[in-house]
Amino acid sequence: MLEALKEAKKAQAKDEVPIGAIVACGNQIVARAHNLTETLNDPTAHAEMQAITAASAYLNGKYLNDCTLYVTLEPCPMCAGALYWSQIGKLIYGAKDPKRGYSLLSNTLLHPKTEVTSGIMANEAAVLIKSFFKTKR
Amino acid sequence: MLEALKEAKKAQAKDEVPIGAIVACGNQIVARAHNLTETLNDPTAHAEMQAITAASAYLNGKYLNDCTLYVTLEPCPMCAGALYWSQIGKLIYGAKDPKRGYSLLSNTLLHPKTEVTSGIMANEAAVLIKSFFKTKR
Repeated sequence: MLEALKEAKKAQAKDEVPIGAIVACGNQIVARAHNLTETLNDPTAHAEMQAITAASAYLNGKYLNDCTLYVTLEPCPMCAGALYWSQIGKLIYGAKDPKRGYSLLSNTLLHPKTEVTSGIMANEAAVLIKSFFKTKR
Repeated sequence: MLEALKEAKKAQAKDEVPIGAIVACGNQIVARAHNLTETLNDPTAHAEMQAITAASAYLNGKYLNDCTLYVTLEPCPMCAGALYWSQIGKLIYGAKDPKRGYSLLSNTLLHPKTEVTSGIMANEAAVLIKSFFKTKR
């Protein structure tokens, strides 16, 4: 999660909403990504989406059953839906998203085999996001 | 929708699940895409996702409020979640997806301002998909 927070800080440095994601398989990091929706003018360029695409390309396969996605904020429904198709083994996220977190909408957005852990370094992740939005007001 | 069906047939020719999507703004088509999950080894490479990314790039903006997405099959939750972020003006789809259609999970996956029409050339879209899966059995 420390590595995902580093990615979030890269997004912050680009004036993007600071969210970072990592995909790890075993002890190896196979993808690193941060939110780039503004830079790319692309509403789909969330950290998780890019991390899934990059990990699948690296592993040369669509399925990430043996991998873990670490992300600083709870995924939105789009990202949870992408994690479903990837059949990711584990999802570990930091802060809850009280506005658009996937768990607010449905418990069946993720794949039934995906294990979920939340609240890891949640404070660090939330502070980053809150301070970003404070500068925008 | 005829143009979206043409895209679906391009996917079929590549041995991909035959689904096609078009984004139109006014009378102009600004993006065409078809499912490429196998070709790209990317579970996020649905027709709609690529169409949203391409349309946003073409229009140089993240929001598609004045656009319509035509897609041959009901979007999945990932694609509906992406359409939410794009704030797409209208969604017009063909066949219902009884397995993973977004409407099975939640009615709040799309943006509240998005108008939805379904069933347009549904039979043509469904026949394409059914015949594809028949060859896979």
